[in-house]
Amino acid sequence: MKTIHINTIRPYDVHIGAGLMDQLADLLPPKVTKAGLRGAKAVLITDENVDSLYGERVSEKLETLGFQVMKAVVPAGETAKSGEAYLKLLSFMADRHVSRSDMIFALGGGVVGDLAGFLAATFLRGIDFVQLPTTLLAAVDSSVGGKTAINLPEGKNLVGAFYQPVGVIMDVRLLDTLSREIFIDGCAEVIKYGMIWDRALFDKLERHVLPDKRQDEELMTEIIARCVEIKEEVVSQDEREKGLRALLNFGHTIGHAVEKNSGFSISHGKAVAIGMIMATKAAEQAGICEKGVGQTLERILTAYGLPVTTDFPGRALGEAMLADKKIDGAKIHLILPKKIGECYIHDMKTAEMETFLLGAEGTDGDYAK
Amino acid sequence: MKTIHINTIRPYDVHIGAGLMDQLADLLPPKVTKAGLRGAKAVLITDENVDSLYGERVSEKLETLGFQVMKAVVPAGETAKSGEAYLKLLSFMADRHVSRSDMIFALGGGVVGDLAGFLAATFLRGIDFVQLPTTLLAAVDSSVGGKTAINLPEGKNLVGAFYQPVGVIMDVRLLDTLSREIFIDGCAEVIKYGMIWDRALFDKLERHVLPDKRQDEELMTEIIARCVEIKEEVVSQDEREKGLRALLNFGHTIGHAVEKNSGFSISHGKAVAIGMIMATKAAEQAGICEKGVGQTLERILTAYGLPVTTDFPGRALGEAMLADKKIDGAKIHLILPKKIGECYIHDMKTAEMETFLLGAEGTDGDYAK
Repeated sequence: MKTIHINTIRPYDVHIGAGLMDQLADLLPPKVTKAGLRGAKAVLITDENVDSLYGERVSEKLETLGFQVMKAVVPAGETAKSGEAYLKLLSFMADRHVSRSDMIFALGGGVVGDLAGFLAATFLRGIDFVQLPTTLLAAVDSSVGGKTAINLPEGKNLVGAFYQPVGVIMDVRLLDTLSREIFIDGCAEVIKYGMIWDRALFDKLERHVLPDKRQDEELMTEIIARCVEIKEEVVSQDEREKGLRALLNFGHTIGHAVEKNSGFSISHGKAVAIGMIMATKAAEQAGICEKGVGQTLERILTAYGLPVTTDFPGRALGEAMLADKKIDGAKIHLILPKKIGECYIHDMKTAEMETFLLGAEGTDGDYAK
Repeated sequence: MKTIHINTIRPYDVHIGAGLMDQLADLLPPKVTKAGLRGAKAVLITDENVDSLYGERVSEKLETLGFQVMKAVVPAGETAKSGEAYLKLLSFMADRHVSRSDMIFALGGGVVGDLAGFLAATFLRGIDFVQLPTTLLAAVDSSVGGKTAINLPEGKNLVGAFYQPVGVIMDVRLLDTLSREIFIDGCAEVIKYGMIWDRALFDKLERHVLPDKRQDEELMTEIIARCVEIKEEVVSQDEREKGLRALLNFGHTIGHAVEKNSGFSISHGKAVAIGMIMATKAAEQAGICEKGVGQTLERILTAYGLPVTTDFPGRALGEAMLADKKIDGAKIHLILPKKIGECYIHDMKTAEMETFLLGAEGTDGDYAK
């Protein structure tokens, strides 16, 4: 097991390892186990898929800790993060007289984590919550850093709050039941950490193609822990996203536009893969990035089964990007690589963005028609 | 003019005085005027009543500062704080590509301030907002302290965030256009400040019956500034409502139950007046509070035109209180007076609450039938 201490205003621990779901009593922070002892309510938020696999097991464990468990099962997928779904869950908790001394447990992937986190941040102006991520994506991304969110019809994650969980427990054994597709989706974010921060991690990911090694619990624990460490390093220096933290958005501004244009039929990880390769190729074309990085990135993404092209026209992506919350008025902050393991924040006038992205077209991939 | 510096994580100033609406350019913080100079968007949130009186004037002033003004007019009253109304306004902003460098202006009473504040707290995970309170209640209460909120069908203010404005400007001349009823409503909160913290303020409020002196701009500036000062003293010591800040809830736990039982047809101020007198009479009956305080409080409330009785049965109020967010599991924290100018937090088992409140019945008023 690896434990990473997250050093924010409300510090907490992330535990990563095999079989941790059976050690909840030892791993949850004292604040949580004490709440159980006095019979507090545990609002367990999970989705249909995860519920059928682990819902009962986690419910039982929480009951053993003394909690009154109230389970809310949401549909699998992004629709669970709609404003209407959020209001429904708020009423679910209010109807059950959930109080400030009760808490929320998020059992699921990024969608469940974001939604449950935003519920925790805003119900009664803030109650405690615990993250039990069940996907690779949630483990390396959404369960760390305090970002919580819901979607609007106008775009993903346009509403949310910065709010920290009181603890995160990631049982890598849960990865076994992920479909290959969902697992691969998480790999895009893992590769991102290599690209923005850690050449050694990137090299390791090239040597060990994760989708073929997901049964290797030690490797998975190590990789996830390294990603969480990187995120912690970045976030602890910049909790409210003014500068450094923006690096984590590598591939995301374009990626969100791809997701949106697809009506969210293209998954987050795939969209981020497309966003990373577009940004990299354009940066290479503009002479910002070392030659050959685009090709290396393309090779690893392809090896992992991730896409490297999109059919959406550049103009459509540009319009979707303007609606992204990362856009700062007339300027856009794109994260661009200089080389593998080093990215930086590039400020660009929104008017220039389209031309810049067309740079990706000049290369061997036809990224933005 | 009086200026009170609010010392929180994000400090800001509250300016109070006559005619301040004509001095916006001088009184807004530099951050805001700079945003205007670069043509940022100003989302002006106001209600129908206030819009017809001041909407155009404020729009023009913001345009003069350089802002692109986008006005959203909500219905007057609590319905504007529903979850559905909140989602609609989020989409209103997303549709107009409001970004993190844009800002919200809340022009109105407590409802507009709470709603606009929660929008600001959560849209794109937080954008700046300015409060321009137009009612006495908003000036002395909801525009200071960083509490933002919306309602659920299950109860008032059950959802929200702690989020500070970047500035508050209260033009006491705007009080002229308030109906007597709305003005009196705010007086309940003013009297509350006297009860919990400041005997001298209470005495002054007895000498000068505000509803008859609201044209006295100097007196109003002084009284509002003193209330804001008290709130600042309390809140700066306890921003996230763990202890001292709870004093501000004097009359509110019972008051919210009264509001809820009336289907929100009884106004906030009237409900707080009823809550204060019930808590005081019960405390007096229990020997907690000095004799005669209930009578004095009853006298001033009556002089101000505020109610001191309710027809709702104690049991109904008790049930509504259990749904209140101030309830901490099996315990309820009631704020009770010891004497005028001094209240404290009394922890009570929820099971004992009803009996305690019946104490109010033994006195001359029949507060909880």
